[in-house]
Amino acid sequence: MKEVKIGILGFGTVGAGVVEGILKNGELMAKRSGILPIIGKIADLDIESDRGVAVDPSVLTTDALSVINDPEIDVIVELIGGVTIAKQFVLKALEAGKPVVTANKALLAEAGRELFEASVKSGAGLYFEASVAGGIPVLRALRDGLVGNQIQSMYGILNGTCNYILTRMEREGLDFDVVLADAQKLGYAETPPDLDIDGIDTAHKAVVLASLAYGAPVSMEAFTIDGIRGLSHREIEYADELGYRIKLLAVIRNVDGAVEMRVEPSLVPKNHLLASVNDSFNAVFVEGDVVGETLCYGRGAGRLPTASAVIGDIMEAAAGKGGSCSWLLQNASLPVRGANDISIRCYLRLSLKDQPDAIAQVAHVLGKNHISIGAVMQKEQNEGEQVPVVFLTHKALEKNFAAAMEEIAALNVVDGKPVRMAIEDFE
Amino acid sequence: MKEVKIGILGFGTVGAGVVEGILKNGELMAKRSGILPIIGKIADLDIESDRGVAVDPSVLTTDALSVINDPEIDVIVELIGGVTIAKQFVLKALEAGKPVVTANKALLAEAGRELFEASVKSGAGLYFEASVAGGIPVLRALRDGLVGNQIQSMYGILNGTCNYILTRMEREGLDFDVVLADAQKLGYAETPPDLDIDGIDTAHKAVVLASLAYGAPVSMEAFTIDGIRGLSHREIEYADELGYRIKLLAVIRNVDGAVEMRVEPSLVPKNHLLASVNDSFNAVFVEGDVVGETLCYGRGAGRLPTASAVIGDIMEAAAGKGGSCSWLLQNASLPVRGANDISIRCYLRLSLKDQPDAIAQVAHVLGKNHISIGAVMQKEQNEGEQVPVVFLTHKALEKNFAAAMEEIAALNVVDGKPVRMAIEDFE
Repeated sequence: MKEVKIGILGFGTVGAGVVEGILKNGELMAKRSGILPIIGKIADLDIESDRGVAVDPSVLTTDALSVINDPEIDVIVELIGGVTIAKQFVLKALEAGKPVVTANKALLAEAGRELFEASVKSGAGLYFEASVAGGIPVLRALRDGLVGNQIQSMYGILNGTCNYILTRMEREGLDFDVVLADAQKLGYAETPPDLDIDGIDTAHKAVVLASLAYGAPVSMEAFTIDGIRGLSHREIEYADELGYRIKLLAVIRNVDGAVEMRVEPSLVPKNHLLASVNDSFNAVFVEGDVVGETLCYGRGAGRLPTASAVIGDIMEAAAGKGGSCSWLLQNASLPVRGANDISIRCYLRLSLKDQPDAIAQVAHVLGKNHISIGAVMQKEQNEGEQVPVVFLTHKALEKNFAAAMEEIAALNVVDGKPVRMAIEDFE
Repeated sequence: MKEVKIGILGFGTVGAGVVEGILKNGELMAKRSGILPIIGKIADLDIESDRGVAVDPSVLTTDALSVINDPEIDVIVELIGGVTIAKQFVLKALEAGKPVVTANKALLAEAGRELFEASVKSGAGLYFEASVAGGIPVLRALRDGLVGNQIQSMYGILNGTCNYILTRMEREGLDFDVVLADAQKLGYAETPPDLDIDGIDTAHKAVVLASLAYGAPVSMEAFTIDGIRGLSHREIEYADELGYRIKLLAVIRNVDGAVEMRVEPSLVPKNHLLASVNDSFNAVFVEGDVVGETLCYGRGAGRLPTASAVIGDIMEAAAGKGGSCSWLLQNASLPVRGANDISIRCYLRLSLKDQPDAIAQVAHVLGKNHISIGAVMQKEQNEGEQVPVVFLTHKALEKNFAAAMEEIAALNVVDGKPVRMAIEDFE
């Protein structure tokens, strides 16, 4: 029986989950794969606190470099997070010829090329299944199971915190701020929550997905990133009446050889599977030219689900399989479609003054910007002088929406900030 | 660039799909994996018919053995189907030390142990992702991504024909026979349709899933297999009123170390993701002790989706990864739970004579067999003298249901054949 000795950097929530999983199922893994995983060393600045798992104190150290440099350690697992120290350690481990497993999507999204190059140079594999959609083995599916496919599109619900907030807003009829505060109290949202609710975390994961699908790291600067901060409950209500649910969606599409990416709250038709992904669950819907439509669903975060993916990677690294980053550097850069090229349908919600030509004025601005209206829903109940009106548009260029929204916001008949969200028809 | 030469046995629908996929995306695969797939030889009794793909006629042969024995051929792909000739060829290829890719679930379910032993003996890998749920890389997920998990349960919609029929029955309010006939005309169902509609095909796939999860081939004789033949539209209607959809479900659970398996039409709560798997799509819901709940969804059959899985296996075999069958022979046999141990909730639909004590007589039989009633729904509309009555039971042993149903069918107040289906609560 071959043994693999694991060196874990970062003994936080996920690190403790990895230890728990290996202690519980290590022998089962050995039976399945022929390789017995052993916790060799664990480095953390805090080696005193109880993590709820039984580890031999002699494996604990505060010196991460001693773990990387220990000749007994076969695989390095980076669970520190952040993009500075974590990056140094990952690079050092790769330079030392050791395969590295990481769950660090921010690091991959912001320094992917540098890491991939270091991996290719040293020949040591880099494994990062846990960085996207937690326990769901979707990166592996893209890399292996769907290797024969051109990836036409991917639509992801990739942030459990946002999906939890949206689900509760919908079920309980609450507004964003109320649910966020409660989610923070319950530990479902971080403080500060910005990375999650502003869409940055989702964008990090979208970058990793796109890299795998299209063979090049995509820059975070290349696409629109918007989150769910301040979303009003009435948007959810109106969307519901129109047959949609609101999800924070990462959209990654190959359109005529160029990559279109967006992260924004989007209206998803209720009969689409992604509309049924609730609570803190994640899902990735993938369309390939050979396989057709597929979807992977599961817990996107948390101690054990993330540990499940980390452990899968550890076992693959131990077997000396996978982990090559050559494909991820295949293309120097990808042609990316921006607001001048991207065509979307939109949901617009305005508060209009109750005067006869209000809708006409809005319609005029839309028409001038080449946006045609598919449907208008005017709610009967007035809010003082304001009447909420929802427009569903046909497809138009993103840049035209930007221009139109600015003009609309400046109209005298419009009160407050107009709301615009994408409608995703999965076409 | 390494090249891999593929020998395909069986140039039918899927065989032609594999050729199409490789011709279309072979170079992309080479960029992704460093291995260029090349169609080396194709054997079929019919090498004249046009399959709609451009192959060099010199690769075609009617002699499968010449493909297996050709020293230029690196990987054998068995797409003949059936369990006699296909088995001979697979064994011969393994004996010759060549890795084999197959989509043949019947062969795996009925002769799994023999094939796995031949693979282990020769050291040549056996790959069969395409045998379960077509293009969905669920076997790979179980083997690699979820390697660190004890698999607690799997629930699969594994037969596209049945799911297509059930979806149309539900949407269009039609009865089984009508939709089946139409599905056969449209090519969505085979003639004869028995393997699909009687649950055999689903059971084959369940056996493969269980083998991978629990490390031993399970015998087809060890569990209940029932299909959707003759299902009445009113069952779908009543289930709908009660908050359920009817799906042909494979249930595979680990209960206290013993495997519980069943294939039968089952009531799935509408808010469960599996209830939203429609048309000819497949899905597998997997619960692992570390990852929690996951689901994979996609096309379960068809030329290209199946080809996608076959191609993924070819590339893995070409890389010399995976394909080991040692784990599949880990356990000589599995403890299996039968009707004496399995506890389920049931939906019972009876046609009762319109007389005062009819329900009491049925309730008496159920009580005698230790089955307690959770809910009763009596439909107002009479069908002549008969009143349809639906009982939802609490959990009881499968054997008690069998005994009770026999007694109930014999009651004077009961007309026609009583209907019993499992209710799946995913607990």
